[in-house]
Amino acid sequence: MMTIFTKIINGEIPSYKIAENDHFYAFLDIFPLVKGHTLVIPKAETDKFFDVSDELMQEYLLFAKPIAHAIEKVVPCNRIGVSVVGLEVPHAHMHLIPINSADDMNFSRSKLKLTPDEFREIQAQIIAAL
Amino acid sequence: MMTIFTKIINGEIPSYKIAENDHFYAFLDIFPLVKGHTLVIPKAETDKFFDVSDELMQEYLLFAKPIAHAIEKVVPCNRIGVSVVGLEVPHAHMHLIPINSADDMNFSRSKLKLTPDEFREIQAQIIAAL
Repeated sequence: MMTIFTKIINGEIPSYKIAENDHFYAFLDIFPLVKGHTLVIPKAETDKFFDVSDELMQEYLLFAKPIAHAIEKVVPCNRIGVSVVGLEVPHAHMHLIPINSADDMNFSRSKLKLTPDEFREIQAQIIAAL
Repeated sequence: MMTIFTKIINGEIPSYKIAENDHFYAFLDIFPLVKGHTLVIPKAETDKFFDVSDELMQEYLLFAKPIAHAIEKVVPCNRIGVSVVGLEVPHAHMHLIPINSADDMNFSRSKLKLTPDEFREIQAQIIAAL
């Protein structure tokens, strides 16, 4: 069965896409901890992050880097934090989260509720900063 | 001024080393969220994670991967989580944390207090599993 992320990559489920190349796809987290919270995923389905192939591991942070810098330009923050948890969707994914305190990365916090217009606005700003 | 992590790499401050190569150093976090909590750092001092050079970004996850697998073999857990926060020490670092729930990666939790013997035991187990 395809993961929900594969359906997003294939366009069967809509997403606020930030960037894409042959191997990776980045899009806004629909349940963001903070504005600008972005997911970076390899297109190949792998459950556990550290089981992703060596070839993709080499490219992963290089793909994420300009996206992190773009988020940092757009969202007022101290820096971009990274989190890989992976207990809910069996498709490796990396969270990029603009943070001012460690608590901004606390996944037990309640998530932000953004309107479609707010999602589209932050999406457009990040893409423009890429 | 050298960061505390550079002093650890240089051996001026002792650490429970897990692995090392020309560019990276891994050691047990002295304030672990859970047993086996390990830090992976580039030897070059860079404050922000996403300002680490492209060359090192390519190698970072490849260096961390076998360490993550070794921790996963030794510590009962669902998988290895990754966290990059970086608000306290201005030297890029990645946390590898064996997790069973997202709360295992909540940095506002109180840290474990392990004895030197307990640190040495988990260090030896992880190294043996590498």
